[in-house]
Amino acid sequence: MSSAEATLSQIVGAAGAHVPRLLGLVEERLVTLAAGHGPVLAEHAGDTIAAGGKRMRPLLVLLAAGPGASRAPDLIAAAAAVELIHSATLVHDDVLDGAHLRRGVPTVWAQGGRGLAVATGDLLFSRAFSELTAVGALAAVRSLSRATSALAEGELLQRQDAWNAAVAIDRYLLRCELKTARLFEAACEMGAQVARRSDAQIAQLGGFGRAIGLAFQLLDDVIDVAGPASLTGKHRGTDLLDGTVTLPLILARERDAALATLNLRTITTPEQAEELCERIERTGALDASRTRALQMVADAKRSLAVLALEDGQRQALNLVADAVADRRA
Amino acid sequence: MSSAEATLSQIVGAAGAHVPRLLGLVEERLVTLAAGHGPVLAEHAGDTIAAGGKRMRPLLVLLAAGPGASRAPDLIAAAAAVELIHSATLVHDDVLDGAHLRRGVPTVWAQGGRGLAVATGDLLFSRAFSELTAVGALAAVRSLSRATSALAEGELLQRQDAWNAAVAIDRYLLRCELKTARLFEAACEMGAQVARRSDAQIAQLGGFGRAIGLAFQLLDDVIDVAGPASLTGKHRGTDLLDGTVTLPLILARERDAALATLNLRTITTPEQAEELCERIERTGALDASRTRALQMVADAKRSLAVLALEDGQRQALNLVADAVADRRA
Repeated sequence: MSSAEATLSQIVGAAGAHVPRLLGLVEERLVTLAAGHGPVLAEHAGDTIAAGGKRMRPLLVLLAAGPGASRAPDLIAAAAAVELIHSATLVHDDVLDGAHLRRGVPTVWAQGGRGLAVATGDLLFSRAFSELTAVGALAAVRSLSRATSALAEGELLQRQDAWNAAVAIDRYLLRCELKTARLFEAACEMGAQVARRSDAQIAQLGGFGRAIGLAFQLLDDVIDVAGPASLTGKHRGTDLLDGTVTLPLILARERDAALATLNLRTITTPEQAEELCERIERTGALDASRTRALQMVADAKRSLAVLALEDGQRQALNLVADAVADRRA
Repeated sequence: MSSAEATLSQIVGAAGAHVPRLLGLVEERLVTLAAGHGPVLAEHAGDTIAAGGKRMRPLLVLLAAGPGASRAPDLIAAAAAVELIHSATLVHDDVLDGAHLRRGVPTVWAQGGRGLAVATGDLLFSRAFSELTAVGALAAVRSLSRATSALAEGELLQRQDAWNAAVAIDRYLLRCELKTARLFEAACEMGAQVARRSDAQIAQLGGFGRAIGLAFQLLDDVIDVAGPASLTGKHRGTDLLDGTVTLPLILARERDAALATLNLRTITTPEQAEELCERIERTGALDASRTRALQMVADAKRSLAVLALEDGQRQALNLVADAVADRRA
């Protein structure tokens, strides 16, 4: 059993057997959606959706909803919609990055070119909203459209700040919030909305999602610098080669005068990136970044303690937070 | 006074003075939206929105709603949303086509590259849905998400059929419906929804929008072949050079054996494209295409006659149909 499977089995143990059943329904729905819009989408979107990974966001929808809402008609739609948005973002990101592979599968961009990839992403975006309107989930549309706006704003911010090694921490955190945390927040909000929770609870569960989403992104950025390549499947420092300045470098610059004056544009080869990553690591900036992320996870878990949730539900959400904290690749 | 201004003044004469007032509010809203998401979006999306053109789609929203709904709180949101989707599509289309200018203004792609343009388009998409959810317009979200799915599907279809001169008419018409007509349909549906019309009337006004949208696309495709460049500002046959097969060529192939065996990939220069356009014109295919489009407009106008609309509203919608039929560039 992989560690991801072990975690899911723990989560299911806490949350109940309805969770894998519902995740199965979400999978089915995603396959149906990918297949229902012609062979082109079926081929390209299907691959992307299938390669999408761990289904963290749909899982958060289901867990934030809780067992009481497990038969709500809009639950599966909400869980599928958030994954569709995530998939759309991946397809568009691969266009921006010119990425050939994602999780070992050729990207839509690599297979069909930018035109096909932009249109496929747009279609996945649209289908997400169609999913929600089909079940009349207006509040969910609101949460999701806010999150998708944030995603795009985050992408714009990232481009604006590219190559600027002197970017401020707050600005970096804002980017992480926009690019990652808001969709986690929307996932939790949507689950809570489906379960007809109070506005206060919707906001609190959303806050939990946002906090672990932020930690997720911070740890993602740590992993990019920390490697090792044997675990991540890509060389260290890909972000740095792209001009994307993340927390490890920001903190390392405060600790190493040579890094503080580094022009990121001079780093152009994987070997130079590897060397820069080692230099960043020697400053202790990776540990400091990790500590910061783990603090966010701990705060998020504490925020759950005061919420009126079923014990199993709280436990399952805590396990998701732990899984975020534990991620290594 | 330009012919477009003359048409608008006729429409206002028929529909009433609330229409320019409302169009002004839509403009203001679009400017506010473009300015409200940071300087990057303000610069790039603002330019795109400003260069967007004739505001046909918001006008259809307003006219389908009618004077009785002129103070409905969701009217401006619906009109702004449909224009945001249109703008998003233009931004993404310019990425796909590598277009440097749109209506004389440098495209987002040309100014900021594909990353910025993809993200800007995504943000405009998201803002459209946020606009609608802010006013609780679930039915409008449904109409618009259906239309945006269709737009993306149409783009995928176009890519699939690229360079295939033997494409069937039905397939061409389906592409036009997906790429253009459905957003016109959504505009009319959204206006009718805001005005709380019956489901039957919403569908009928939607059908009117779809029909004139289809004609709009057919005539757009005729103009690409017919030119003249002095009027359109671009050389004849740009679609053909892109491998986009449209009705004039489809009909001309039935009339000219040499065209029937033409491999479109052999047409690579503007001069060759010009020559091909002249050859298409000599078959009478341009007139046949125009006739087909004008028939659609006439049918659309007839469909309005049986609808319970105010006289001024019907007259204004008829004038929009006439403006579509009259378009020359």
